[in-house]
Amino acid sequence: MPHSLPDPFARANERFAESFGEQALSRVPAHKLAVLTCMDARVEPLRVLGLDLGDAHVIRNAGGVATDDALRSLVISNRLLGTTTAYVIGHTECGMISFTNDELYSELEHDGIDARWLDFLPFTKIETSVRESVVRLRETTLLPDDYTVQGFVYSVTTGLLEPVEV
Amino acid sequence: MPHSLPDPFARANERFAESFGEQALSRVPAHKLAVLTCMDARVEPLRVLGLDLGDAHVIRNAGGVATDDALRSLVISNRLLGTTTAYVIGHTECGMISFTNDELYSELEHDGIDARWLDFLPFTKIETSVRESVVRLRETTLLPDDYTVQGFVYSVTTGLLEPVEV
Repeated sequence: MPHSLPDPFARANERFAESFGEQALSRVPAHKLAVLTCMDARVEPLRVLGLDLGDAHVIRNAGGVATDDALRSLVISNRLLGTTTAYVIGHTECGMISFTNDELYSELEHDGIDARWLDFLPFTKIETSVRESVVRLRETTLLPDDYTVQGFVYSVTTGLLEPVEV
Repeated sequence: MPHSLPDPFARANERFAESFGEQALSRVPAHKLAVLTCMDARVEPLRVLGLDLGDAHVIRNAGGVATDDALRSLVISNRLLGTTTAYVIGHTECGMISFTNDELYSELEHDGIDARWLDFLPFTKIETSVRESVVRLRETTLLPDDYTVQGFVYSVTTGLLEPVEV
């Protein structure tokens, strides 16, 4: 199996490194911010918030859900690297509203694959999902009392962030 | 608790939306690529690979580890949104080599917090961690036989990606 970068990525990375030069950014996020958002290809949270390299931790999974793994990451972010705020950012047209666990289990079973041990965490309404994640992160004992969590929905057609009241 | 975006993020998002205009990108990643990488603030995989909005799924957690949650996301990415390749990208100076579970459990216990149910997944060598994640994703039955997984280490000081042989 190949292990080097194929073009155009190899050339793009060379160009990036040339403009990058030699940098020594801090491991500690400059804005003390962690962003939890979806893996969706139309979402890039740094651009959306006007952030640069070094400014914020970014945690992403299918749906932008506060899973145990996202919580693991946020505790490390807070305890070891000093972030004090998390933004949970869902987005419009999210693929997580397009299927159910049973539909995906059936599709995988059709190819002889048993995935019933894995909850794919689909949801039906993005605002509800964001709200549930915000509540989990506000209520967990693993993050301090003065830790701030806010929720937003990003529009993939307008680029705007709308707050979600929790 | 506040729910709207504070400045400078609110103004930055307005400016972003103005330049964004009205877009209708496909939900399907144009490069059929998913990137699994670390939450580290010094890493932004799209820039590093010369990718644009709409090109690739991005999954990020502390360490860029192929956890169950990352696997959940990659199966959705592959099965429902057609990605055929995953790049696992660790990076130099990763914070995950700076602590052990027991140290973090002790620090949390000092504040009366029991986190022993949660494995924070620290590691000692980035190449080993990338290799383990690549192997897990190559060996899982949840991704198809012709699915490609490659591993890299990104240098936060030079911007270059180095392949990890697996």
